[in-house]
Amino acid sequence: MINNSETLKQRRPKVLFFDVNETVLDLTQMKKHIGAALAGKEELLSLWFTTMLHYSLVTSASGQYKPFGHIGAAALQMVAANNDIIISEEDARKVITQAMQNLPAHPEVKEALTQLKKAGYTLVAFTNSSNEGLKNQFKNAGLTDYFDERLSVEDSGKFKPFTNTYVWGAHKMGVQLEECMLIAAHGWDVAGALWAGWRAAFVSRPGQQIFPLAPKTEIVETDLKKVTEILVTYT
Amino acid sequence: MINNSETLKQRRPKVLFFDVNETVLDLTQMKKHIGAALAGKEELLSLWFTTMLHYSLVTSASGQYKPFGHIGAAALQMVAANNDIIISEEDARKVITQAMQNLPAHPEVKEALTQLKKAGYTLVAFTNSSNEGLKNQFKNAGLTDYFDERLSVEDSGKFKPFTNTYVWGAHKMGVQLEECMLIAAHGWDVAGALWAGWRAAFVSRPGQQIFPLAPKTEIVETDLKKVTEILVTYT
Repeated sequence: MINNSETLKQRRPKVLFFDVNETVLDLTQMKKHIGAALAGKEELLSLWFTTMLHYSLVTSASGQYKPFGHIGAAALQMVAANNDIIISEEDARKVITQAMQNLPAHPEVKEALTQLKKAGYTLVAFTNSSNEGLKNQFKNAGLTDYFDERLSVEDSGKFKPFTNTYVWGAHKMGVQLEECMLIAAHGWDVAGALWAGWRAAFVSRPGQQIFPLAPKTEIVETDLKKVTEILVTYT
Repeated sequence: MINNSETLKQRRPKVLFFDVNETVLDLTQMKKHIGAALAGKEELLSLWFTTMLHYSLVTSASGQYKPFGHIGAAALQMVAANNDIIISEEDARKVITQAMQNLPAHPEVKEALTQLKKAGYTLVAFTNSSNEGLKNQFKNAGLTDYFDERLSVEDSGKFKPFTNTYVWGAHKMGVQLEECMLIAAHGWDVAGALWAGWRAAFVSRPGQQIFPLAPKTEIVETDLKKVTEILVTYT
C-alpha cells in the first residue's frame, strides 16, 4: 500500500535506514529465553519489551546513556519483580545477551536486501542496540555483508525516536533529512523519523501498530519483500 | 526506610511535588473501564499503561505535544488492535476520560496531606495529566483544596521525566532544584527527578518498581502516610 502522491512515489531516497530488532531480525525465539526467565509467562514479553523501550527514553530524557541491553535487563528485573520473581542484575544481563544476540533474520530479509542493493540503494542498519550488540547480532544472523554501514544510537547518545538521533544519522551518511528513509516495524520509530523530516516505510509485522497520532508513512507493507517491490519502482 | 545520611535527612525540602496518577489517586477502578474496552482482558492494563508512558516520551522526544489522555487513547487503540479488537479514536477517548477522571484518592492520602500542610510544607501536584484533566481528577476525588498549586506538564511542553520539566517546575515555584522533592510511585519519575537535581521519595505501591539503573531515593515507603511520618521529622 502506498499512502502518498505519485510525485513522491517516484523519487528515490538516497539512503535507506533499517531498524534492526523486529524489522530485520525475527524476535520469536527471544520469547523462549525471556519467557523462561519469567517462570514461563510468555504473555509478559510485550510488557517487558515496552518497558525496555519506555526506560530507554526515560534515560535519554534525563540526559543519561546506558546500553540498550542493560536497560533491557533492568526492565526484565522490574517486570519479574512485579510477578514475584527475583532476578539479579548479573543473571538478567546474561538472559538479555543470550536472548537478543542470537536471532535469525526474517525469512525474506536477505533476498530483499540483495534486490535493493542491486537496484543501487545505499543500505544502513540503524539501531538502538549498542555497537557491540549489533555486531554480534549481524554476525550470528549472517547479515554483516548485506549493509553498507552500521549505525548504533550509542554514538549519538540518545535512543530513537529522539529527533537528534535521526539528524545525526543523516549527517553521518552525508545526506539531507529529506533524502533519508527509515524502514521499521515500530510505530514509534517511523513516527520519530517522519517528525524529524525523514521519509518512512512501516513494516506491519504481527503485533506491531502505527501510532495513531503520528503522520502516515508513504509505504505500509507486511514484510520487507513487499516494501522492496515498491522501492525498486522509484527512480 | 531512609536511604540517606543523617545530615540530608534533617534538611527540609522547600516544596513537595506529588505525582498524581497512582501516587495520589488509586487506579484500581481504572482496570474495570480499560479491561471492559479490551474485551475483559484486565491483564493487558499494565501493557496499556506502559505503552501510554512510552508514547508520551516518543511524542516529547520528537518535539511534539499531545494531551496525555489522547496518547492514552491511542495506546488503547494500539493494544486493542494487537488483540484483534478495533476501537475508534472517539470511543477510545471516551473510555480514557471516563477511566482516568473518576478515580478516588488512596485511603491514606488526605490525612497525610493534612499532616504535611500542618507541618508547614508547600504541596504541589505535578502531573503528566493535562490542566483540564487534573482539575477534573481533583474535583472528583475531593482533593482540590489539599494542594497549594497544580502543575501540568502541558505548560512545560514535555512529559515527565524530561529534565526540562523538573527545571520548569522548580522555576514555577521560585525555588532551586535541590530545594525540591518529588514524591512518586513510579520508578521513571523519581529517576528523572534525581537526575534533574531534585530529591525524591519513592512510594512502593503494588506493581511499582524502582529503575535499577537510577540513583536511589532517600525515602522508600509503601504509602504516603509512612512517607509523611519521615518528612515531619525533617527540620
